[in-house]
Amino acid sequence: MVDATMLTEAFEGNRERYLQEWQELLCFPSVSADPARADDCRACAEWLVRHLAYMDFATCLLETESHPVVFGELIKDRSLPTVLLYGHYDVQPVDPLDLWDHAPFSPVLREGRIYARGAQDNKGQHFYALKAIEALRAADALPVNVKVLLEGDEETGSVGIEGALETWADRLAADILLVTDVGQVRAGVPTIVMGLRGIIHVTAELHGAVRDLHSGVHGGVAPNPAAALARLVSTLHADDGRIAVEHFTDGVATPDEEAVDLALHGGFDARAYEKETGVAPVGGRRDAPVPVRAGFEPTVEVNGLLSGYGGPGAKTIIPSFARVKLSARLVPGQDPARSLQALVTHLQHHAPAGLALRITEKGVGGTALELDHRSPLVNRAREVLRELDSGEPVLHWEGASIPIVTALAAVAGAEPLLIGFGHEEDCIHAPNESFSIEQFRQGFTFVALMLQALGE
Amino acid sequence: MVDATMLTEAFEGNRERYLQEWQELLCFPSVSADPARADDCRACAEWLVRHLAYMDFATCLLETESHPVVFGELIKDRSLPTVLLYGHYDVQPVDPLDLWDHAPFSPVLREGRIYARGAQDNKGQHFYALKAIEALRAADALPVNVKVLLEGDEETGSVGIEGALETWADRLAADILLVTDVGQVRAGVPTIVMGLRGIIHVTAELHGAVRDLHSGVHGGVAPNPAAALARLVSTLHADDGRIAVEHFTDGVATPDEEAVDLALHGGFDARAYEKETGVAPVGGRRDAPVPVRAGFEPTVEVNGLLSGYGGPGAKTIIPSFARVKLSARLVPGQDPARSLQALVTHLQHHAPAGLALRITEKGVGGTALELDHRSPLVNRAREVLRELDSGEPVLHWEGASIPIVTALAAVAGAEPLLIGFGHEEDCIHAPNESFSIEQFRQGFTFVALMLQALGE
Repeated sequence: MVDATMLTEAFEGNRERYLQEWQELLCFPSVSADPARADDCRACAEWLVRHLAYMDFATCLLETESHPVVFGELIKDRSLPTVLLYGHYDVQPVDPLDLWDHAPFSPVLREGRIYARGAQDNKGQHFYALKAIEALRAADALPVNVKVLLEGDEETGSVGIEGALETWADRLAADILLVTDVGQVRAGVPTIVMGLRGIIHVTAELHGAVRDLHSGVHGGVAPNPAAALARLVSTLHADDGRIAVEHFTDGVATPDEEAVDLALHGGFDARAYEKETGVAPVGGRRDAPVPVRAGFEPTVEVNGLLSGYGGPGAKTIIPSFARVKLSARLVPGQDPARSLQALVTHLQHHAPAGLALRITEKGVGGTALELDHRSPLVNRAREVLRELDSGEPVLHWEGASIPIVTALAAVAGAEPLLIGFGHEEDCIHAPNESFSIEQFRQGFTFVALMLQALGE
Repeated sequence: MVDATMLTEAFEGNRERYLQEWQELLCFPSVSADPARADDCRACAEWLVRHLAYMDFATCLLETESHPVVFGELIKDRSLPTVLLYGHYDVQPVDPLDLWDHAPFSPVLREGRIYARGAQDNKGQHFYALKAIEALRAADALPVNVKVLLEGDEETGSVGIEGALETWADRLAADILLVTDVGQVRAGVPTIVMGLRGIIHVTAELHGAVRDLHSGVHGGVAPNPAAALARLVSTLHADDGRIAVEHFTDGVATPDEEAVDLALHGGFDARAYEKETGVAPVGGRRDAPVPVRAGFEPTVEVNGLLSGYGGPGAKTIIPSFARVKLSARLVPGQDPARSLQALVTHLQHHAPAGLALRITEKGVGGTALELDHRSPLVNRAREVLRELDSGEPVLHWEGASIPIVTALAAVAGAEPLLIGFGHEEDCIHAPNESFSIEQFRQGFTFVALMLQALGE
């Protein structure tokens, strides 16, 4: 048994090498959403395969219809429990680039944090897990079999892995699915994630004239796609913040009362939230408390609007088209394909006369994931987290999605365990993403302790 | 008297030189809205001053708080009528740049048209007037005094000239204010513009979190500026297309019945409009015919929307802010400052809780211009236009704005005459702007004939 103190020593002894390797991984601009970055995604995956091989994993690149998947296994004894570690090496796009203090793919270490796209999400959060496995092996203290699956499409809905998953069932078979791609409810509070929302996305455009028109000559004559899009988007929600898309919430299950009660006691602090983000938590339904809105309610969010001229000064045009990028989060009971269809039907039904609605992109992510807070695995994780000496662990019903987790757990026959060390200040999905060395060390320590606990 | 035939000969004899000079003028990227182009605007103005000097004008650059104004005069005899030619050397921004077939400031001649930003609006349309003056002088047939005023802020609301106009009253004194910065109701139909709308503009932003937030973690918790902006913009109009901004239309005068009747008989052709623009003319109020909506009704138009991510693939964020660029066209009776205040007040009144509304830009252009269709000047222009042999001239109540014309006419003590040769297919304010050599020649011929008629 390697305890927390020994793990801290091991971490400090290897610190420079860990940081060096982690930063190498962060140099790959593996933006899965950008077709121009396909080669960079592959190069990143190949680096990881080499890294796993150097860690003595039997490893390979699994091809998919999209970006390749990194797979590795370290089988000690088939009679031991097997832990499947899931992560993703793809990252979010970097724009708006001008808001970054450094180049997003040239990692910078400043005041104990590494700044780079992917520093946390998810390169940082799977790399500490790999280093924990390495440290246990070095101490001859790894009491479980380990499989590692790192995909390259998480940020765009896991399209590659989804199509191939069934064919990999034998390879992925495991007892526990460990997912570190999550965060803490508040910085430093050990958190066990008890649910994830599902996700779908739609890009819709309204097209008018064949070109931008002069807004004087044509104002009051030609229909305005930007104004019409604003009207269309405004129909998605009612005045009280509820989703107004017909049939979108069909099938939503009533949440477990004890789960809601636990979520409400998770210690959400509105003042701390506002201090951290700069806004009061007033999104979503007016009549439900925040933990319910985030953990048990679906959303329809506008991720972007684009139409006409957005720069300085005046450009007096009627734009030829307007685009909205939408994504929605789903809760247990919602079927992603049906929810997506409801959203598209709503847009079609409310599209204005005289303009052409085009659905230019759409996608179905995973369904929502609902875990059992009464499971022994949860209790064991709670005990391990207490060893980190950073306070009493809380259970958290999370608003984010990891589309593939539900399907992956089913195919692997594994019970999911979702524990990560992300903080709000890490700015994932935003400029100046970062992850602190302290968070990395905590993650490293937790994974090493948890793997040992699972082997007991 | 130099008649139309002789003018055609003069044009053909100088054609290469005219095209050469015109294209030189088009090379200046004089985008007044872009502060980075200030030096280019000045260089363009200096070129025009040199050009007027070479045409024997007494000329100078008049400094303003914004871009300089080009002024020139050719005073033959103080007892003769004086014509003040108004134009502008600034141009609209060029984005979206990727939709241009050629670089916008490298003019290209193709199939009888010059392609460049400003080819028509307004460089082409004032340059033919300068060449007409030059041709009359060469034939010793210029029977009027001519003054030329070319400003550099028309596309951004004539801010420079507006502040200085009163101090230039003596210099600008004239009998007729000739404005060629207008178009024809349909390509080839000689058109006398009888009205222009006023203009104001506002850029409004809704600010939420200090950075883009993860739309899963924060969805249903943080307010979404993009969704909220769509709601806010949707409040600007009622379902029937009417403007729903309180007090915005205060003071709108009932239009002259005979004028409305003439406008309705201007021959607007919905099918031709749709063929030309790609959209049916279904903008604005549902219950008014097109010529009334364009000529006698105000508008509030969305010129642009900008928020979050607009590119390919999914980026699951709640944007930190959303921007809308609005401009409004005003009709006689509306006070621009009061209409602007009404619009800002509406935005403030309807701004959502939890987000910060910022009015980041706003501006007041000119008031609407209303001309008298019974004036002898209109009859004389009609006779001159008949000499162009391109059909019976029509009177047109125009939807566009030339903010400074009303004020300029008042200061100069001149009666405005608005006749130009722009066509819809010129794509002003849009990518691939162009102006045909035939339109240039028609404009040249008209100005030369009109100046002679005014000297009779």
